[in-house]
Amino acid sequence: MADLKTFFHPRSVAIVGASKKPGKIGNAIVKNMISCGYPGRIYPVNPREEEIEGLRCYPGITEIGESVDLAVVAVPAGRTIAVAQECGLAGVKNLVVITAGFKEVGREGLVLEKELTRICKSFKMSMLGPNCVGMMDTHVPVNASFSAVFPNRGNIAFISQSGAMLVAILDWSLTAGMGFSHVVSLGNKADLNEADFIANAAGDPHTKVILCYIEDVARGKQFLEVARAASRKKPVIILKSGTSQAGAQAASSHTGALAGSDLAYETAFRQSGVIRARTMGELFDLAVAFAHQPVPAGNRVAVLTNAGGPGIITTDQIEKSHLAMARFSKETSTALRENLPPESAIYNPVDVLGDAGVDRYRFALEKVLDDRSVDSLVVLVCPTAVTDPENIARTVLEAHHRHPEKPVFAAYMGGKTLESGTKLLTAGGIPCFTFPEPAVNVIRGMVHYSRVRALPEKEEEMTFPEINRQPVEELFHRVREEGRLTLLGSEATRVAENYGIKVSPMVLATTPAEAAGMAREMGFPVVMKVASPKILHKTDVGGVKIGLNSPEEVKEAFIHITENVQRYLPDVVIHGIEIQKMMPKGTELIIGMTRDVQFGPLIAFGLGGIYVNLLKDVSFRLADGLTRREIAAMIAETKAHTLLRGYRGEKPADMDALINMIGRVARLVTDFPQIAEMDINPVFAYPDGACALDIKITIS
Amino acid sequence: MADLKTFFHPRSVAIVGASKKPGKIGNAIVKNMISCGYPGRIYPVNPREEEIEGLRCYPGITEIGESVDLAVVAVPAGRTIAVAQECGLAGVKNLVVITAGFKEVGREGLVLEKELTRICKSFKMSMLGPNCVGMMDTHVPVNASFSAVFPNRGNIAFISQSGAMLVAILDWSLTAGMGFSHVVSLGNKADLNEADFIANAAGDPHTKVILCYIEDVARGKQFLEVARAASRKKPVIILKSGTSQAGAQAASSHTGALAGSDLAYETAFRQSGVIRARTMGELFDLAVAFAHQPVPAGNRVAVLTNAGGPGIITTDQIEKSHLAMARFSKETSTALRENLPPESAIYNPVDVLGDAGVDRYRFALEKVLDDRSVDSLVVLVCPTAVTDPENIARTVLEAHHRHPEKPVFAAYMGGKTLESGTKLLTAGGIPCFTFPEPAVNVIRGMVHYSRVRALPEKEEEMTFPEINRQPVEELFHRVREEGRLTLLGSEATRVAENYGIKVSPMVLATTPAEAAGMAREMGFPVVMKVASPKILHKTDVGGVKIGLNSPEEVKEAFIHITENVQRYLPDVVIHGIEIQKMMPKGTELIIGMTRDVQFGPLIAFGLGGIYVNLLKDVSFRLADGLTRREIAAMIAETKAHTLLRGYRGEKPADMDALINMIGRVARLVTDFPQIAEMDINPVFAYPDGACALDIKITIS
Repeated sequence: MADLKTFFHPRSVAIVGASKKPGKIGNAIVKNMISCGYPGRIYPVNPREEEIEGLRCYPGITEIGESVDLAVVAVPAGRTIAVAQECGLAGVKNLVVITAGFKEVGREGLVLEKELTRICKSFKMSMLGPNCVGMMDTHVPVNASFSAVFPNRGNIAFISQSGAMLVAILDWSLTAGMGFSHVVSLGNKADLNEADFIANAAGDPHTKVILCYIEDVARGKQFLEVARAASRKKPVIILKSGTSQAGAQAASSHTGALAGSDLAYETAFRQSGVIRARTMGELFDLAVAFAHQPVPAGNRVAVLTNAGGPGIITTDQIEKSHLAMARFSKETSTALRENLPPESAIYNPVDVLGDAGVDRYRFALEKVLDDRSVDSLVVLVCPTAVTDPENIARTVLEAHHRHPEKPVFAAYMGGKTLESGTKLLTAGGIPCFTFPEPAVNVIRGMVHYSRVRALPEKEEEMTFPEINRQPVEELFHRVREEGRLTLLGSEATRVAENYGIKVSPMVLATTPAEAAGMAREMGFPVVMKVASPKILHKTDVGGVKIGLNSPEEVKEAFIHITENVQRYLPDVVIHGIEIQKMMPKGTELIIGMTRDVQFGPLIAFGLGGIYVNLLKDVSFRLADGLTRREIAAMIAETKAHTLLRGYRGEKPADMDALINMIGRVARLVTDFPQIAEMDINPVFAYPDGACALDIKITIS
Repeated sequence: MADLKTFFHPRSVAIVGASKKPGKIGNAIVKNMISCGYPGRIYPVNPREEEIEGLRCYPGITEIGESVDLAVVAVPAGRTIAVAQECGLAGVKNLVVITAGFKEVGREGLVLEKELTRICKSFKMSMLGPNCVGMMDTHVPVNASFSAVFPNRGNIAFISQSGAMLVAILDWSLTAGMGFSHVVSLGNKADLNEADFIANAAGDPHTKVILCYIEDVARGKQFLEVARAASRKKPVIILKSGTSQAGAQAASSHTGALAGSDLAYETAFRQSGVIRARTMGELFDLAVAFAHQPVPAGNRVAVLTNAGGPGIITTDQIEKSHLAMARFSKETSTALRENLPPESAIYNPVDVLGDAGVDRYRFALEKVLDDRSVDSLVVLVCPTAVTDPENIARTVLEAHHRHPEKPVFAAYMGGKTLESGTKLLTAGGIPCFTFPEPAVNVIRGMVHYSRVRALPEKEEEMTFPEINRQPVEELFHRVREEGRLTLLGSEATRVAENYGIKVSPMVLATTPAEAAGMAREMGFPVVMKVASPKILHKTDVGGVKIGLNSPEEVKEAFIHITENVQRYLPDVVIHGIEIQKMMPKGTELIIGMTRDVQFGPLIAFGLGGIYVNLLKDVSFRLADGLTRREIAAMIAETKAHTLLRGYRGEKPADMDALINMIGRVARLVTDFPQIAEMDINPVFAYPDGACALDIKITIS
């Protein structure tokens, strides 16, 4: 991971392509550097100027004669290569390349971008961009960007793949009262990418929340590692766009990025502990909440209101969000009953009634926050004749100070009447909404994060004895040499056996006598199927016989199947007949694998059988580093889990055997990148074990 | 339905309980009536005052000596009965009872409320409330409420079961720039309820959108009829709270309302064409959109942006909302390609780039709106150095005026910089959001409504020949006389047969010989089951035999079953043994019915078999007035539908037979309110027909 110390805290900044002309990007950057109050030295570089904005201007980076930590490059694209070269020679440590006209404009730009990146790497210079707005840090402070807005100081790090959105958000943040520790416009991510900045922000003492807008990730594996580690320290909240098919098209036409499928991103975010925002509104609501409020200890929410209707709406939203309504202790209920008017609702939600003044709010606030069964609180205020929104706000702030460990949110439902109260709360760090639902959404995100944070940073990896890699390697080699990409059932069975995946025995026989001998060896009854990857519907051509109970039946079936297939499909090559031991019926499951370009193999688990695609009862996990805990969670997400726990009086299935089998499949597909796709359908789960019945493996 | 002409347009208003004292509700109402500019006569009534707020005060309603269209009552609860009586005698046409202390405070209040309602009915007076904030109409204008805020004139009718929320929203509406035609605080709905006001608003020329916040409906059937008719004319948007279990508890403890299950509401809203808002934000976003924008002709959305990222986010949201990205005509694409800079994105979303001035926006706006494949448009603006948000706003308004039939929405992503543009758009009726997602949500709601509006007001009801009500009536009577609530399988079969529901024959035999004869008559193979509603798991006690192929087997099975059951459950009464013809296996479905206190019978349809509760592939419709179109839609919502259309090469099922069966079940449970619950599981669907296998009916 890049060390970004000198990037964010440069002792000196050069602006290559600095300009005297207002409105030019090269002028805006110089002005921004000056006006932000940057404490280091600023060197405008332009061979045609002597002085810019009161600063001495240098003809070239090498002429500065002092070490430069960061150079902001705003020259035409064609000049960037030479400039980077000069910067490298002059010992510049970091580049911010503002210039556009690279990957995003097509092939030629991509070539230019690769050359630029190569030069940076050869000089060990870090590079942000190209094609970006730049970078700002409010604590240094430094403003190496052409943004018209410099944000308020705060504790949110914002990393954006869209420069325009970054600027829009900074503009909006001033009105919304949000503050940032630093903001980064990623641009084309030719060198530094979101993972570098997430890792840096995780270690940055000024940053409490890491916020990202991305359209793709640069490197899946790196991202996963960084996001997992960062999430254990601070919330990492990401809005990832390009989720839809049409969205992905827009993404690739826009940034030239290869957008992975959304399923892989969804899985990667969940598995690494990233909080995924669904909308821009949610992204910033979460950011502000985490910036100013503590993470709740649990999911029990209390609601305090001066009107019934909004209380009900809030309660509904809490239930919909799978949070819990706090159940107050007897002490709390008694205190509320004895001190509030008799018409008040004293259970959660607490309704202090429309005529509640500050004192009644204060009393209820304190009692509710004192209650140990309350993890977070939503305070609702509707304007009535006696409502004093400003002093209620002060009371809420006071109550929160007494319990700084419990997050508090407000919904002030009204307009001008409540404005001063809303401002007081916002300034005091209590997010205040117009309607209650967003407050509950934010709590849901925070509760989710409280669980992420509680996870161990490193989890024990699963280890598997009895894995024989070599025979599998050889088998794949041989299949490919034969010009095939699909394994025969008996071959896939061999692969599974070598990875300790319990599978119903299957062998390939080439003569009736061989078949009979093999069947006797594995034990009756057996199934026989014609072995030919070209035949998709084996039953339709008489290529399958089930329930064979003796050597004689097996011999007869061998002849029959061969005749049938030859009659229906005279031109198809038959590898022989596969004999498989029939297994007792268990719960039908599927374990599968599909490969994502960005994140590698994805493991699927769910209800198996012929209705897999109809029922869609499947959950996913990335195979890489899959832990026992994640596999158990993966199983628990499915309806299959209900069956496996013992549905309608059945015995529960052997979960350990299933977890083990999924773990081994994950290991297999991680060990062999040449496995393009894999399906085990069905897997039979039993009270004492599990067994793979039908395995399909395609290699590439 | 109540005629509310004199209610909303009273020629004279009396305030009974008028007060001189500022801060008193009786004073606020008089002031509100005066200050709103009410053109009719105002009569304060209070025996202790001569004059209030400059108006002559009357000692009693009867002393006014002139006819009073509307009396607002703000006397203590104990006095309301006498006041209502006086009002009735004086010929008052409508009451608005502000006073609280009725149903919401318990049993005593309920008695009082019933008496009040009785008096109103006896004088044919309409009554709003009790326990409400009142009513306002901005077009008359009249303000018969104690609300501190009088809203702007507009075309949204707002009906709220929560008075506090009504006031909060009015307060907020002034800031948000919303206008209302009239607003109603429903209170306890002792007489006038949401259905009365929806029906009235549907016919009100000043109202374009009907907005409701409700916690329950007063009368299900009335609501359905009114909502269905109103929805064909104007959008009816409802936020219904108390959806969750905890929410429902809060609802009943608050208003004493008996909240129906959310499923019934969800179904009732959908079936009547109501647009259900999920959050308060959505409720008002939709209201504003419908108030000012036309309903789109279709679901094809165009996006115009000056920045890539937000364009992608908008595209994602469109896909997630099951809307379509418009595909431009060749003419549009060519014009955009030839006139926009080469780096622009000319397909949807159109990206006019960060340096776009007003002219470029104008050109793209016109071309996109001219395109016949565009039904609605979202315009995005991010602040850049050259962005002119105000003039872009003017251009958007102009473009919209050229195509008033296409709804246009804006997202101005930023703060202060964009404020003037945002204001211009809002004032011009174009909803302008900070982030793009809510704009797309609103379009989704509007597209949904365009489909509702296109439905015929009256749909053909299904008619069923060969229905014999009388035998079913008698059967239920007999079962109840026997002290049972659960029908035997053979009885349920009889019920189905009498309603023309195709069912596999089942009869009850009491001797082995009778059983053998019956089996011979229906044809082999048959199934035999012990007939006893007390035995839940018949298989476990040896009470079931399947695949019986001859009279001898039947006789033997009869004896075996009887012995088995007597051994296991010696004390249980056995009605005999039921013989059922075995049917060939078809697609396993369920058709069921559960009864809602508010909306009556709900029909369920979906995948049947033993995994019904696990798979949860079930859709619902209200039985009342169920049409062929609704049944087809109900089937189409399920995964079962995929099977029925012919999955994996199977023959498609006989949809007509299924629709007919569902229609007959709906008719049966509508005809017989005494059927409490009914389950047909499984129903077998075949390519040529459908057959009910196992019918359970419980009566009450």
